[in-house]
Amino acid sequence: MKNTFGNSVAVTIFGESHGAEIGVVVDGLAPGIPVDEDFVNQQLALRRPSGKISTARVEPDPWRIVSGVYNGFTTGTPLTILIPNTNTKSKDYSATRYLARPGHADYTAWEKYHGYEDFRGGGHFSGRITAGLVAAGAIALTALKAKGIRVGTHVARLAGINDRKFENLTEDIETLSNLPFAVLDSGAGEKMQEAILQAAADLDSVGGILETCATGIPAGVGEPWFDSVESILSHGLFSIPGIKGVEFGDGFAMADLRGSEANDPFRVENGKIVTATNHNGGINGGITNGMPLFIRMAVKPTPSIFREQDTVDFQQVENAALTLVGRHDPAIIHRARIVVDSLVALVLCDMLAARFGTDWLGKE
Amino acid sequence: MKNTFGNSVAVTIFGESHGAEIGVVVDGLAPGIPVDEDFVNQQLALRRPSGKISTARVEPDPWRIVSGVYNGFTTGTPLTILIPNTNTKSKDYSATRYLARPGHADYTAWEKYHGYEDFRGGGHFSGRITAGLVAAGAIALTALKAKGIRVGTHVARLAGINDRKFENLTEDIETLSNLPFAVLDSGAGEKMQEAILQAAADLDSVGGILETCATGIPAGVGEPWFDSVESILSHGLFSIPGIKGVEFGDGFAMADLRGSEANDPFRVENGKIVTATNHNGGINGGITNGMPLFIRMAVKPTPSIFREQDTVDFQQVENAALTLVGRHDPAIIHRARIVVDSLVALVLCDMLAARFGTDWLGKE
Amino acid sequence: MKNTFGNSVAVTIFGESHGAEIGVVVDGLAPGIPVDEDFVNQQLALRRPSGKISTARVEPDPWRIVSGVYNGFTTGTPLTILIPNTNTKSKDYSATRYLARPGHADYTAWEKYHGYEDFRGGGHFSGRITAGLVAAGAIALTALKAKGIRVGTHVARLAGINDRKFENLTEDIETLSNLPFAVLDSGAGEKMQEAILQAAADLDSVGGILETCATGIPAGVGEPWFDSVESILSHGLFSIPGIKGVEFGDGFAMADLRGSEANDPFRVENGKIVTATNHNGGINGGITNGMPLFIRMAVKPTPSIFREQDTVDFQQVENAALTLVGRHDPAIIHRARIVVDSLVALVLCDMLAARFGTDWLGKE
Amino acid sequence: MKNTFGNSVAVTIFGESHGAEIGVVVDGLAPGIPVDEDFVNQQLALRRPSGKISTARVEPDPWRIVSGVYNGFTTGTPLTILIPNTNTKSKDYSATRYLARPGHADYTAWEKYHGYEDFRGGGHFSGRITAGLVAAGAIALTALKAKGIRVGTHVARLAGINDRKFENLTEDIETLSNLPFAVLDSGAGEKMQEAILQAAADLDSVGGILETCATGIPAGVGEPWFDSVESILSHGLFSIPGIKGVEFGDGFAMADLRGSEANDPFRVENGKIVTATNHNGGINGGITNGMPLFIRMAVKPTPSIFREQDTVDFQQVENAALTLVGRHDPAIIHRARIVVDSLVALVLCDMLAARFGTDWLGKE
Repeated sequence: MKNTFGNSVAVTIFGESHGAEIGVVVDGLAPGIPVDEDFVNQQLALRRPSGKISTARVEPDPWRIVSGVYNGFTTGTPLTILIPNTNTKSKDYSATRYLARPGHADYTAWEKYHGYEDFRGGGHFSGRITAGLVAAGAIALTALKAKGIRVGTHVARLAGINDRKFENLTEDIETLSNLPFAVLDSGAGEKMQEAILQAAADLDSVGGILETCATGIPAGVGEPWFDSVESILSHGLFSIPGIKGVEFGDGFAMADLRGSEANDPFRVENGKIVTATNHNGGINGGITNGMPLFIRMAVKPTPSIFREQDTVDFQQVENAALTLVGRHDPAIIHRARIVVDSLVALVLCDMLAARFGTDWLGKE
Repeated sequence: MKNTFGNSVAVTIFGESHGAEIGVVVDGLAPGIPVDEDFVNQQLALRRPSGKISTARVEPDPWRIVSGVYNGFTTGTPLTILIPNTNTKSKDYSATRYLARPGHADYTAWEKYHGYEDFRGGGHFSGRITAGLVAAGAIALTALKAKGIRVGTHVARLAGINDRKFENLTEDIETLSNLPFAVLDSGAGEKMQEAILQAAADLDSVGGILETCATGIPAGVGEPWFDSVESILSHGLFSIPGIKGVEFGDGFAMADLRGSEANDPFRVENGKIVTATNHNGGINGGITNGMPLFIRMAVKPTPSIFREQDTVDFQQVENAALTLVGRHDPAIIHRARIVVDSLVALVLCDMLAARFGTDWLGKE
Repeated sequence: MKNTFGNSVAVTIFGESHGAEIGVVVDGLAPGIPVDEDFVNQQLALRRPSGKISTARVEPDPWRIVSGVYNGFTTGTPLTILIPNTNTKSKDYSATRYLARPGHADYTAWEKYHGYEDFRGGGHFSGRITAGLVAAGAIALTALKAKGIRVGTHVARLAGINDRKFENLTEDIETLSNLPFAVLDSGAGEKMQEAILQAAADLDSVGGILETCATGIPAGVGEPWFDSVESILSHGLFSIPGIKGVEFGDGFAMADLRGSEANDPFRVENGKIVTATNHNGGINGGITNGMPLFIRMAVKPTPSIFREQDTVDFQQVENAALTLVGRHDPAIIHRARIVVDSLVALVLCDMLAARFGTDWLGKE
Repeated sequence: MKNTFGNSVAVTIFGESHGAEIGVVVDGLAPGIPVDEDFVNQQLALRRPSGKISTARVEPDPWRIVSGVYNGFTTGTPLTILIPNTNTKSKDYSATRYLARPGHADYTAWEKYHGYEDFRGGGHFSGRITAGLVAAGAIALTALKAKGIRVGTHVARLAGINDRKFENLTEDIETLSNLPFAVLDSGAGEKMQEAILQAAADLDSVGGILETCATGIPAGVGEPWFDSVESILSHGLFSIPGIKGVEFGDGFAMADLRGSEANDPFRVENGKIVTATNHNGGINGGITNGMPLFIRMAVKPTPSIFREQDTVDFQQVENAALTLVGRHDPAIIHRARIVVDSLVALVLCDMLAARFGTDWLGKE
C-alpha cells in the first residue's frame, strides 16, 4: 500500500520537503518498548547533513512524539512522530517548475499527479521523508537490541574505493553505530570523503554500495515465496530514494559460482546448527537460518548536480537546459546508511511479531 | 501475505513437489482477456526441463482451468489453474529426511514447521510451484500484449559467458519468446550450454544473471515509497527460488558512476518525452517514465549437486555427510527466465489495474 | 482483497456454480493441526441440501486435499481443498441469460463484468462456493477445539418462530454440532420446517436469524478501531450470500437501552475477571474480554422463488417477466449456519495467530 | 490492519484522548480534489459536543493539514491532518486507574497492552480519535459530491422515538447536512433531545439507531465475497465506538419477509435500469446496483454514566465500585452520525478508486 508498509508492524510515512512537518506512524509495535530519546536524536543526527560533504541546509529535527508512547514506553497503539521542516527556501525551486531534473521524479510525478503535486524540493519524493523512518527505526532498533538482535550498515564502496569487510560482527556493528561517516576502515573513509569533495568541486556527485549486517535473528523467521525475507526486505529497501540494486549474501557474485562454491555446509558448533560459510546471507528458502543476515545495496549518485543538463519542459513538451541552484549534496550514501538500518529494523520487527505474536518484542 | 501477492491483481500459489497437484489463483484480472491455451502450453514447455542440460524428470503439465474463464475469456472472478504432479518418486527422498541439503530450505523449514512440513522433493519450497505462476503469467502476458506492452528475459550471463545486450527491443523480445534457451547471441548460448554440461560432468551446478526488458508501459504508473515499481517488482522476483540479487537499470554499476554519467537527460522526440539514455531502467522516483523497464537478477547455482557435502542431521543435531541421488538440474536459470517473465507480467497487471481501474486490461 | 480474506490466516476462495471444481486455499494455519476427514465430511453434509426442505440437487462433495496436509496434519503451508461440481444442469439457465433474477447478482455482475461472467447457476456468486469455506472451517474448528474454543450457531428465528436462547453454552454448542436443522428447541425447529414447506407450497421462500456463540476465547484478542473483533467478523460474515444484518451482543436491542441497562458490570468469579451480564457479546472496545462471543445475523429469504416476477432484460434494457425453473431452496438459513460456524472459526484463527504467533494453534 | 483501513484509498488514524494531538493520514486520494476548509470546519463542528445534551469539554479543533495538499487541492500523496487536544484534564482519571469502566475498553486494553496503555480518557480508544476521520471524510465528501454522489445520516431512533423515514433523498440529505441534531422530523428531534436530558438527569445515558443514505453511486462497484460493499462498509462502521449492529436495506426486518416481499423487481425507467423497491439497500451480491444505498447502525448507550456501578480492580483482581466524575455525554449518537457520513464517504472513495482508477475522483 503506497505509503504504508508491513503487516504485523506497519509503517506509514507522509509529508513533503517544504510542508510544515513530515511524519511517521508505526502501528503494531509491542507495548513496553522503552523510548530512548537520546538514541532517537543520535540516529537523526547521523541522517542529518553535516560538514563539508553535505548540503548547507540545516535541519535541526526537533522531533516530537504525538501518540503511542506513555511514561517512556510504547503503548502498543500507533506511535506517531512528527518532525517540523525548517529553513525551507521555496523560492529556489519555482523558476524551474516545469523543467524535469534528470534522474529525479519531477516528470513522473507530473504524469501521475497532473500538476497537483507539491513540487518544491522534490515534495513527497524528497529524501527528507526518510527522517521519519529513522526516528521510528531508532525505537525498533532498541526493541531488537533487547532481544539480542543488532543491525549495522557501512559504506562498503564509494567512487571505486572499498571499505574492509565485516570481521568481528558485534564489534564492527558497535563501531559503526556512532560514526558520522560509517566505514570499518577509517583510511578508506577518508579517501571516500575526498572523492566526494572532488566530485563536488567538479559540480558532480557520487554513489556507492551500502552493506548491512544483522545478527541474532532466530532461525525459522520469514515465509516461503512472497513473504520471503529477501522479498520483504527488498520491498522496503527499494523504497529508499536512490537505491537501484539489492542483493543478499554474495548476491550477484553468486552468479559466477558453482554450487559447490555457493552452498553453505551446515555444521554443529557448540550444540547449535550453523553454516560453515555464509554465501546465502543467513537466508535459505526465504527463511532465516540463524546465521547473520547480509544485504548489499547499490546507491546511485545523487541526481542533483550543478552542471548544466539537457532536459525538457514537460508542460510545453519542448527541449530545455537546466542549471540547478540551491543546496544539494554531492553524496547521500553516508546519510542513507542510517535509513537502511532503520528500515531493516522495522522490517525485522514486522517479521518477528508475525512469527512470535504481538507481545514478543515488548518488555517481558 | 505469505503465498498471496498483489493488490488489484493478486496471485495465490499453493502445492508441494510431491502432492497431487499444484496450482495458482489469480484474482482481479479484468473480464474479457482471451485465454490462449496454446500460448499457456508453450510457456509451460519453456519452463519444463528438456534435453541434456536439465533433469530427467518428465513433467507433462496437463494443466486445467478450474475457475474464472468462460467461453475462452477471463470472467473477472478468480482464475484458478491446477497442474497435476506426475512421475514423482518419493522414495528417493526418505533416506535423507533429516539431512539438510546445503543451500536448500530443509533446515529452515524444520525450524519453522517443526517437522510437519512435507519435505519430499522440497515440498512447498520446490521450484515446481512456479509452474502455476507461468500458467497464470501467460494470461497476463496476453492481456499486456493487447495493450502494447511486451516482456522478455534472456540469460545475460552464465559461467562467465555474457550474452549480447538488448538492441532492437521489440525484435529481441519476439526472438526470445520462442527460445528454449533464451539468449540473444546463439553462439554465447551454445557456450553456456556447454558450461552447464561441464558442470554436470563435474557433479556440480552453475548460476547466472537474467535480464528482463519490458516495453510499452505508460508513464506515471507506480507509487512513491513503498509501492515503488522497484519495490513491488523486487518483492515478487525475490520470491523465485535461487534469486539472490535484483537491480534496475544499471543497478550496481551505478554505484561507480558520477551523477553526470548516471542521470538520463530528458528529450522531446516526435512530440513525446523520452530520455536520451536509460541508466535508471525506465523508473524515476519509483514511477515509470515511459522508457523501457530493465531488470537484472542474480540466480545462484542450483544447490542440488551430486558431490558429497558436509551437512547436519537437524533432528539429531549432529554432523553428517550428504550425497544426493535422484534427478537434479545442473542449472535452472534458463527455465527460471520464463518464471521471471510471468511474474513481471502479473506485477505489471497489478500496477496497471490499480492505476487505471479494474476494466483497463480487458477487452474494450 | 476480493476473494482473499485474513492476514495471519488468510482464506482464498474460487470457483463457479457450474465450473469443474470449486475450492479454497487457507494460508497461515499453524503446522501440526490434525485433519479429521470424518469431521470435514460431517460439516460438508450439514451444508448440503437434504430432505424435503432443500433443493433436489445432489451434491456429494467428494472433496480432496491438494496441498498443505502431510501425514494427517497441517504442514503450515497453504492448505488447498477442491470440491468437484457434479450434477450441474447448465441448460436450465441459458434461456434466462439476460433476465435479472430479482435479489440476485445477475444484473450487478453484468455491470461489473460486462457479460464475460459465467452466469450459469449464479456463477461465482453461487452459495455453492461456501462449501470450500466449510471444508476449511472444519480444520479451523478442530484447531480451536484443541485450545478450548468452541463455536456453534442455531436458527434463532424463522418465519416469526423463535428458537430458545442459548443456556448451557457448552452443552448447547455440542448439541447443535450434529443437527441437520440446528435449533435448541426441537419443537420450534419442527414449526420452522413446516413454515419452510408452506413457503415452498406458496412458490415462495423464507429467511430468518442466525445466532452464533463462541466460548473459550482469551481476553485481549483483537485490535482497537479497524481490526476490532466486530469489524473483522462482520467483514467476513457479510461475505456470506443473503446476510443483510450483523449484530454483536444485544445489537440493535441495545439502541433502546440506557447505559445502566447495557453496561456489563465486571466481577471477580473464582479468581477470574468476568462480566455479570453480557450485553456487549464478549467484546469491549473491539477486543475480547474473555466472555462468550455472541453474534446474530439476518438472513434474507432466498431470492430464487417460483412465482412470476417483474424484471428486466438487461441486455435489451427492457421490462420483462421471469419465471424460474430448476432447483431452488425455499430456505437456505439452516444450511448457512454451518458456513457461519466455519467463517467465524477461520476469523478466530486469524486473530489468534496474529496475537500469539504462527505456532500457537498447532500441536504443541 | 489495526489502525489502517482501505486499499486504493487507505486511512490511518492515531492518537490518544490526552496526548498532544490526534491525527489521520489518507493515502490514495486522487490529485486535484479541492480542500474546502470551511466545510471541514463545519463537519468538525457537527462532531463537537455542544449545548446541554453534550459534555462540557470544549474542543475547538484547530486542525491543520500537514501534508498532501498544495494550493488548495489534494496532491495525490498522503494527506495528513492533525488536531491538537486541548483542555484535557488528566487528573480526573488517575484515581480510577485500575477500575474497569463497564462497557469500556479499560479491562481489555489492560489484557492486551499489559498496563503500558495510555489509559487517560480512554486513550487510543477514545471517541476523540474520530475527529480525524471527520476531517478526512469532509474531503472525501467533497470529491464524491463533484461526482454526483451524496451521503447523509440521521438519528432514526432514540429512546423509543422514531424519526420519519427518508423521502426525497436529495432534499433530505441536504437538510441533514447542516443540522447539529440530525433528524428529518424536527418534532421527533425535540423529543429525542428531551429524552437525552432526562437520561442525564437520571445519571444515565441513551443509545439509538443511525440510518445512512448514499445516492448517485454507479452500478457495478464492489466485489463478490470478501470485498462486498456490505463487508467493507461494515468493517469500517464497526470500528466506530459504540456501534454494535449494522444492517443494509431492510436488514433484520428481511428475516421475517418472504422472498416475494423481499425481492426488488427490476424495471426500466427513463431508459435506465432501476428496482421498483429497495429492500436490498442498493446492493445485490455485494455489488452496487445503482439504487440508493441504505445502512442502519445500532449505537449502544454511552457507557460512561454517573451512577455507581459494580466493577473490578483489574490489577488487584478484586471487586470494586466505580463512580465516575468528569465530563461525559449522556448520548453520542447525534455526534456519531457525522463520523458515519465520513467513514462511508472514505469507503466509497476506496471502492470507486479501485473500480475506476486513481484519477477518477480528482479534478478532470
